[in-house]
Amino acid sequence: MNIIIDGMGGDNAPFEIVKGCIEAIRTIKDQLYIVGDEAQILAVLKEQNYKGDQIKIIHASEVITNEDAPVKAVRTKTESSLVKGITLIKEGKGDLFISAGNTGAIMAGGLFILGRIPGIDRPAIAATYPIMGKGVSLLVDTGANSECKPNNLLEFATMGSIYMESVLGFKNPTVGLVNIGIEETKGTTVIKAAHELLKKSSVNFIGNVEAREIPKGACDVIVCDGFVGNVIVKLSEGLAWNIFKLIKTKFTEDAVSKLGALLLSGKLKELKKAFDYSEYGGAPILGVRGALIKIHGSSNANAVKNAILKGIPYVENKVVQVIQNSVLELEEIVTSE
Amino acid sequence: MNIIIDGMGGDNAPFEIVKGCIEAIRTIKDQLYIVGDEAQILAVLKEQNYKGDQIKIIHASEVITNEDAPVKAVRTKTESSLVKGITLIKEGKGDLFISAGNTGAIMAGGLFILGRIPGIDRPAIAATYPIMGKGVSLLVDTGANSECKPNNLLEFATMGSIYMESVLGFKNPTVGLVNIGIEETKGTTVIKAAHELLKKSSVNFIGNVEAREIPKGACDVIVCDGFVGNVIVKLSEGLAWNIFKLIKTKFTEDAVSKLGALLLSGKLKELKKAFDYSEYGGAPILGVRGALIKIHGSSNANAVKNAILKGIPYVENKVVQVIQNSVLELEEIVTSE
Repeated sequence: MNIIIDGMGGDNAPFEIVKGCIEAIRTIKDQLYIVGDEAQILAVLKEQNYKGDQIKIIHASEVITNEDAPVKAVRTKTESSLVKGITLIKEGKGDLFISAGNTGAIMAGGLFILGRIPGIDRPAIAATYPIMGKGVSLLVDTGANSECKPNNLLEFATMGSIYMESVLGFKNPTVGLVNIGIEETKGTTVIKAAHELLKKSSVNFIGNVEAREIPKGACDVIVCDGFVGNVIVKLSEGLAWNIFKLIKTKFTEDAVSKLGALLLSGKLKELKKAFDYSEYGGAPILGVRGALIKIHGSSNANAVKNAILKGIPYVENKVVQVIQNSVLELEEIVTSE
Repeated sequence: MNIIIDGMGGDNAPFEIVKGCIEAIRTIKDQLYIVGDEAQILAVLKEQNYKGDQIKIIHASEVITNEDAPVKAVRTKTESSLVKGITLIKEGKGDLFISAGNTGAIMAGGLFILGRIPGIDRPAIAATYPIMGKGVSLLVDTGANSECKPNNLLEFATMGSIYMESVLGFKNPTVGLVNIGIEETKGTTVIKAAHELLKKSSVNFIGNVEAREIPKGACDVIVCDGFVGNVIVKLSEGLAWNIFKLIKTKFTEDAVSKLGALLLSGKLKELKKAFDYSEYGGAPILGVRGALIKIHGSSNANAVKNAILKGIPYVENKVVQVIQNSVLELEEIVTSE
């Protein structure tokens, strides 16, 4: 397999990206291509004493930043690491593309360079949501589609289920629809119609899920529109961050507290780790004709390595093909309405 | 002032409700009426050795439970504590109504018994959101209106600002619109149109706010539709609950950790208090012709007392009248579009 890494995306590029690649090849035999500024990437490889040929560099003279407008950037920055990387997938020269760069641009690259899987109306950005003490749920969509039709939510459920089963190894994953109450009659017109479609589908639909239950691991696949998904991801990050900040402040206010915190230092580290998104291999762009994975902009080498390792079953288990095969069923459900 | 309390609403009724009333009258001179089952309420008053006449009972033979469908319950259970209580406001015999009961039924009671403030299209449920170390923000709407038009969001902003200024004492409160990005071009069609209306209004609009910033106290009034607001409130509750549960588990796993937790017991209590919603006096139903306050279903006596004390400025500062006076401006902004 050929794995393409965006060497220039994210806050810590190219250093942590390149370092993550070096760490990854200790456990895999696949070929890695880092796309980006050759001189900068080469400097990191040298600094890390890397001399093999399992990692190769593909030079790209441009960089798409987080400030770039996604669609315009993909259309105009054709020499960027992101566009060149996704183009390699399109040309069949790469099997998996990983980037810590501009999320919107990765999505736009998927749509314009690779195209949608035939029959999928709206590709989505899925994200793993850490469930304390239990592992992870998958949240779809987290921002690609602010406004959704009921059939889009059905697509998210189907694609999310396939990803959870094929890539993260959940057998017959449960699917919940984010709503303001568990009763079928609750919510917006779109949500009520989506509920009906999900009941008819072959996903393991458990019904509506209130936001309160999400952090407790209510279901394996959490379905919502991109606006709500974006609120869920960002609010969780912000609230957890704030709680840990307050813990740090409170626990260092006096000598007795400092001693208590010292005795608990191992436990506090475990707590923080329970919120670490980087263990699960990033956010797949589901519904485009190729395996694209977005990782957090602040990803370190460990997160890059994990994304590479966890990305391999995405390709090996032919997730794109499985989604395409499922589309016929979706169309039957929607048109039977 | 005559304050009407729903004696039968919530998980701890009537015991904690009655106890909260007794605690409240230690600091206020106003007349309290507890509406509900006379025998049960009397039993608690006796058990608490209450003998005065600042608290009176108004008998109600029915109870609206959380399982009741709100609109139907308000229409059919005319002898319920909730319907009788709100009717006292309508008749001018009460100035403020407080209930820990069925939120939807309180809203429905407000709409059908009191009616909307003329010119307000969609009343909303506002809720205080605890900001660690800083106090509180006000979130509007938190569930009354799953689907909103841009002018509804403008109404929420205006009513929320008036409440924050008149009741909670925030001078010229800042207003933010929940969105998936801070740029004006982000979000749904409705959100973008609401952004334009808010820019033209006289509220202190600071622009879009991402969910990540909400727990950090990004603004005083957080505006969103009821679906998103419901997700924000419930997700915050669920996530905070989970973090504290995990802290408790981790901190009692071994003897050293237990000792550490013992040294930090005061700090841990302070942490939990930072998330205590009950200090801020509950959730006002904004936009109906009367002062209705919903408190959490699990409210204890302290929360009931706080709701009574914090509810007084709602009436004294004539919030309903101030909202009504502001309506003309809103109509001008919307029709100038």
